[in-house]
Amino acid sequence: MKKGLLVVVSGFAGTGKGTLMKRLLSDYDDYALSVSMTTRAPRPGEENGREYFFVTKEQFEEKIRQNGLIEYACYVDNYYGTPKDYVEQKRAEGKDVLLEIEIQGAMKVREQFEDAILIFVMPPSAKVLRERLIGRGTETPEVVEKRMRRAAEEACGIEDYDYIAVNDDLDVCVKELHETIQAAHHRPISNSEFITQVRNDLKEMAKGE
Amino acid sequence: MKKGLLVVVSGFAGTGKGTLMKRLLSDYDDYALSVSMTTRAPRPGEENGREYFFVTKEQFEEKIRQNGLIEYACYVDNYYGTPKDYVEQKRAEGKDVLLEIEIQGAMKVREQFEDAILIFVMPPSAKVLRERLIGRGTETPEVVEKRMRRAAEEACGIEDYDYIAVNDDLDVCVKELHETIQAAHHRPISNSEFITQVRNDLKEMAKGE
Repeated sequence: MKKGLLVVVSGFAGTGKGTLMKRLLSDYDDYALSVSMTTRAPRPGEENGREYFFVTKEQFEEKIRQNGLIEYACYVDNYYGTPKDYVEQKRAEGKDVLLEIEIQGAMKVREQFEDAILIFVMPPSAKVLRERLIGRGTETPEVVEKRMRRAAEEACGIEDYDYIAVNDDLDVCVKELHETIQAAHHRPISNSEFITQVRNDLKEMAKGE
Repeated sequence: MKKGLLVVVSGFAGTGKGTLMKRLLSDYDDYALSVSMTTRAPRPGEENGREYFFVTKEQFEEKIRQNGLIEYACYVDNYYGTPKDYVEQKRAEGKDVLLEIEIQGAMKVREQFEDAILIFVMPPSAKVLRERLIGRGTETPEVVEKRMRRAAEEACGIEDYDYIAVNDDLDVCVKELHETIQAAHHRPISNSEFITQVRNDLKEMAKGE
């Protein structure tokens, strides 16, 4: 069985990353979602191992010491991180593991997993992004403004990603995203065993003849 | 209209590169074939601008001086090369231009076109490659042996390509090849104008608010 890829998904708030990932999970059998670990308390309805792995501060810091996290950060006095063993287990099962993180985290993943693929989700235009943020109706004008400023900052890192996904029509974007991820399976780096095998056999046969 | 990509296709003799490219051209509207320029005489049935652009030695050398060739080489006293203007014209028409060349030529293309995508066609195994070469029935054992040795040499360069295409089942390979090439349209490098536009608009809006 082919080993799954690690797929990092980033993008501005309001571009529909979460919906896209849910659709990949429901439309295709190829994917698994990375489950983060956190020290914050579970909210009503949240289940350990589904939304998050809920652990104590001591357990989290032990995990850091063991180098067991792909990346982690601290927000509002709580740790959040990506456990390496869960991701590796799903990849060994042949699943492409979706990991939604911000640019800094994405760059840390790139350093550790040179075969990871990094995708940045974009709106069709800045105007559409603002309309979507306003249209949510849940954000104050101040929050919309803050998110637009944050997007302007994040936009500087797009060239460090392998691919962009433009979320204009959701169905089209899901399909393109899927095809883009599957294409990444054809990179030499994701086929090094196969290439080495063919190369060695060719050398062996060329010698023998 | 989106600008087409330059798609370099290399691979061992006997892996079906030619058939794959013919199928891409007939199955999809996205592609055009790069037409080479040569100083060798046309053979019966060959048409200028279809199989090759047939030119004199003087015309070819003038083209070299004008830096009008993406790459060129000399075999058995004749020049063969890839005219830049033809490729650029097809790309401007929105076509992904297929260019079948060897590793050395592919690396020259990479130097000049950083947004080109390089694909290496592989057999499912070394054994299958030998069987296919023998099965052609047109090659002497010496030629088969020579091709196998050449394949063993060429196999050292596979990691310099962006993607591999394993030609086991032809239909599957054509489809994967198409999806892989289309995925390459989603790289940041093939969308720099769009990214710059969104980035500038975001900055403008963030300032304005």
